[in-house]
Amino acid sequence: MVRRNPERRAALVDAAIEVLAKEGARGLTFRAVDIEAAVPPGTASNYFANRDDLLTQAGARVYERLQPDEETIARQRASTPDRETYAVLMREVVGRVSAFRTGYLALLELRLEATRRPKLRAVLTERVRADIEANMAYHEESGLPGDATAVKLLYLAFNWLIVEQLTLPEVLSEEERERLVTAAVERIVQP
Amino acid sequence: MVRRNPERRAALVDAAIEVLAKEGARGLTFRAVDIEAAVPPGTASNYFANRDDLLTQAGARVYERLQPDEETIARQRASTPDRETYAVLMREVVGRVSAFRTGYLALLELRLEATRRPKLRAVLTERVRADIEANMAYHEESGLPGDATAVKLLYLAFNWLIVEQLTLPEVLSEEERERLVTAAVERIVQP
Repeated sequence: MVRRNPERRAALVDAAIEVLAKEGARGLTFRAVDIEAAVPPGTASNYFANRDDLLTQAGARVYERLQPDEETIARQRASTPDRETYAVLMREVVGRVSAFRTGYLALLELRLEATRRPKLRAVLTERVRADIEANMAYHEESGLPGDATAVKLLYLAFNWLIVEQLTLPEVLSEEERERLVTAAVERIVQP
Repeated sequence: MVRRNPERRAALVDAAIEVLAKEGARGLTFRAVDIEAAVPPGTASNYFANRDDLLTQAGARVYERLQPDEETIARQRASTPDRETYAVLMREVVGRVSAFRTGYLALLELRLEATRRPKLRAVLTERVRADIEANMAYHEESGLPGDATAVKLLYLAFNWLIVEQLTLPEVLSEEERERLVTAAVERIVQP
């Protein structure tokens, strides 16, 4: 029997994200999710068919929570589409993603777990592809300068910048990270 | 008592790298290392003071094994230091690092484990800083075009390119990855 209370389900998936970040993929059990969500033992196992289902939903939920809000989108749409705006936008994206620390760390755990679980790998591959394609579509629609190659190169550089910040925050100072975001846009986005 | 046979120690550290990649940081126990190295139970615990010691030595060993060999260095020194050579060099580095699949995955596991272990974080921070500084020193000495900012931006982009390749290899095709390495050098390294 799979339970259908959507709020309870969302709370359990959010708890799974926290467990993934804190304990690693190996620490993600239904019992650990129940404890994190402060619900009675056995609750998570009523909501998810199996561990793959839980891992998959946790990944999808991180992407959902990383979407910009309406206000941010409206503000971006109202800006002049030039390289300065591009740099501001990229600083916002890097800031938003790294601020959801446990979500990003959970995604890294899921990527490593995907090397051991073909089903999870297939789901994450589709999700990451969709994310890159959404970035390219957003870019095209926005009228911002640069091409699809620039979108991909910035995706690569900023993902590792976030890994660096969240795993070994003393390697690059905050000032250095900000400087690298601006430099990346200036060099990679051709006028 | 800490044992001192250096070959045995190296074999145990190499086994730890394989365990990290296959089982994750949580799966790295002295017992799992003994099994992976096919040595009698209790051997690993005679060679390492504790788990932090084992994790730290595994990280150091990955960096050691990623160094280019003498022949590669000599070939690079003999090349004309221009952007074409830079692109060739970067393709070689990305190829060498991603070919040591278990080593790179082990480093990612260690980075995630470092979010939970301050001692490991301190050691890895020093190691990664030293690596970035070595890249910058190599670049300066080589006479290759571009500046320190370019070295850092390429470091960021290529690390995530390798993460993508090793965790979700179907997201970007091999051809696309090669194209992105070349495009990164062309745009980021200014003549």
